[in-house]
Amino acid sequence: MPQLFTVLTPQQAWSKLEPYLSPLERIDTVATSEGLGRVLVEDISSPVDVPHFPRSAMDGYAVRAVDTHGASEGLPSYLKLVGEITMGRPATVALSAGEAVLIHTGGMLPPGADAVVMLENTRDIDGSGIEVVRAAARGENVIQVGEDMLQGEPLLSRGSVLRPQDIGGLLSVGLTKVYVYGRVKVALIPTGDELVSPEEDPGMGQIRNTNAYALSAMAFQSGAVPIRMGIVRDNYDALKQAVQAAVEMADVVVVSAGSSVSARDMTADVVNSLGEPGVLVHGVALRPGKPTIIAFVGGKPVFGLPGNPASAMITFQLFVVPAIERLGGRSREAGRLELKARATRNIPSTPGREDFIPVRLEERDGELYAEPVFGKSNMMFALMRGDGVAVVPLQKAGIAVGETLTVRLF
Amino acid sequence: MPQLFTVLTPQQAWSKLEPYLSPLERIDTVATSEGLGRVLVEDISSPVDVPHFPRSAMDGYAVRAVDTHGASEGLPSYLKLVGEITMGRPATVALSAGEAVLIHTGGMLPPGADAVVMLENTRDIDGSGIEVVRAAARGENVIQVGEDMLQGEPLLSRGSVLRPQDIGGLLSVGLTKVYVYGRVKVALIPTGDELVSPEEDPGMGQIRNTNAYALSAMAFQSGAVPIRMGIVRDNYDALKQAVQAAVEMADVVVVSAGSSVSARDMTADVVNSLGEPGVLVHGVALRPGKPTIIAFVGGKPVFGLPGNPASAMITFQLFVVPAIERLGGRSREAGRLELKARATRNIPSTPGREDFIPVRLEERDGELYAEPVFGKSNMMFALMRGDGVAVVPLQKAGIAVGETLTVRLF
Repeated sequence: MPQLFTVLTPQQAWSKLEPYLSPLERIDTVATSEGLGRVLVEDISSPVDVPHFPRSAMDGYAVRAVDTHGASEGLPSYLKLVGEITMGRPATVALSAGEAVLIHTGGMLPPGADAVVMLENTRDIDGSGIEVVRAAARGENVIQVGEDMLQGEPLLSRGSVLRPQDIGGLLSVGLTKVYVYGRVKVALIPTGDELVSPEEDPGMGQIRNTNAYALSAMAFQSGAVPIRMGIVRDNYDALKQAVQAAVEMADVVVVSAGSSVSARDMTADVVNSLGEPGVLVHGVALRPGKPTIIAFVGGKPVFGLPGNPASAMITFQLFVVPAIERLGGRSREAGRLELKARATRNIPSTPGREDFIPVRLEERDGELYAEPVFGKSNMMFALMRGDGVAVVPLQKAGIAVGETLTVRLF
Repeated sequence: MPQLFTVLTPQQAWSKLEPYLSPLERIDTVATSEGLGRVLVEDISSPVDVPHFPRSAMDGYAVRAVDTHGASEGLPSYLKLVGEITMGRPATVALSAGEAVLIHTGGMLPPGADAVVMLENTRDIDGSGIEVVRAAARGENVIQVGEDMLQGEPLLSRGSVLRPQDIGGLLSVGLTKVYVYGRVKVALIPTGDELVSPEEDPGMGQIRNTNAYALSAMAFQSGAVPIRMGIVRDNYDALKQAVQAAVEMADVVVVSAGSSVSARDMTADVVNSLGEPGVLVHGVALRPGKPTIIAFVGGKPVFGLPGNPASAMITFQLFVVPAIERLGGRSREAGRLELKARATRNIPSTPGREDFIPVRLEERDGELYAEPVFGKSNMMFALMRGDGVAVVPLQKAGIAVGETLTVRLF
């Protein structure tokens, strides 16, 4: 049954799909050290106190603070040197009144001591004792048990994407394994009678399949596992078979649609034939990218992206990347790096549609400028020359020279 | 021979090392489709014209523009329909005066035609002919040979880091292989008598080795291949042997120094014993990170980073990442993403030193705010809670609430 679709704003289009998306139930257990970029399935608290013994924050002498009270350059406190703390070993020397122990940064405070006097505030008396020339307060230069992190204190929350510091932090409390969401599998189906593989010499009327490769790299950058499927011709049964196989195998399906209207309609028909709810969006107020199709079939989001390479990349960034992040369990949008920059020239646009313009960024006198890179039909080359895409918002009729605009790195 | 070092500013410190760094001579040949993040060793121009045949930019009819001149709703031009262009095939139907051929977006313009009339501007006359209701100009809706990219036109320059669009663009002109700089190998040597491996339960006085893992993840993020070496004890000969092996095996060597002054001095002594020029920098006006050592030995940069986990990460970002990028052939700094944000509170600092403060970013009414995350001794946990680090410049005595500061994502 053919449905009538009105063109939606990008935000409206995303809202149609969003309610269908929830994190994958597939969970992996990975070594924390190999967890870079993976997403936690649960909140994590520290199983231990950090540090788990009182540590010295300085090179100096462990002392009883009370023994240094009143000490000054003119009237130093004399303390008897009774040993040295060995790094990596329990402090076995116990400190009595009037005694000091040599200690290094990170060394364990010996029993009886409650402060560390910095080396700079002491004088060595022929190896048997020291003079302290500045009084130490109780706890000075000492990191107490649990001061950095208490047992049970929240460490990371569900949906966090592991960064280098998270790997270091988890390992520091002994968490050498983590539960993370499975990687989102994204099937990429290039379609079109005109496509040949990149290795082939295209004849007259043919072009190379490049979308599957560019989108595959984008999927990889978003933490997904791309699955490049073979080229499908503009044939209803072949496309249906391919989409069906992709829906079974992958978590997200992306059809890079043929470029003609009939080829795009075929994508919509095939998707609708595969089950409810089928096509949710057919047409977005967007340039490039208007003929985008967004669907949900067999429990999986299915996207029909325009065949034009730049349109395919921009719509992938707008709709497929957020879907990957949602399925992948991320608690907040991660990689969407937006900068503000001033336009170096007027950029025309049409109200009622979001325009994405490749731009090159340039810093002058500490301010960022965006120079539009205009292309011809294949905007892929403009994206190659640019550093990002500037967004002309829906309601604006263009951007004036000097006006500030939002640029997404690309 | 012990040398006297003065503490340098971060910029001065980098300038000491920079003249020694040049791109690796090791070159890899990789499939373009697998080239994401790799760095080109040469300028690349297009070997072909794109498109290599005249293509239709629309669904419509290929015509001779002259046959449509004067056409209007009231006085349409009648053209005889003589065929259809099959996608992916050479156009074999040649067009004569008064004729039209059905064509799809991306189809090859047939010989004799010089324009495409959009479907919307035509009426079908019982399958044998069409009425054109709007005149077409020569070249209208046609993408000429080489219009997107001419043979010989520059495509990408030496030192470019391949992004998804670059992969797509290279493949679109048939460049399925590229020459790229070898991946930079970074050896990470954790040192310290107090270290145990993350799987072990640290006893009193011991802590887990986490720096090698966090820095290894950072190296990976910068496109390098991290090599984690075993824990080295605070012993001159053991450290010398490890650094020597690392210098032979890797392109960059990072010693995560023991935390005491004597352990750090040992690193400097070991490095100096291995050849000229040896230690270039010993101490940087930086917090955290003051005791950083920067050296060049056996043709390789060697870094002695502070043992404190957060100090190690921040100095790695400041000095080791740029070195990796330089050796890796990048023509410009890539990943240093800096944002501007307003401080939510006063941040004290000391003039004469660059301060790096973990911050959490928050957007309110379209403006970005940076909330400092204060930590205790182990700032790794502050880095975990933050989104980046704010930089308090060298000459400033702090940042006032509401003042704009630079934040590096971390």
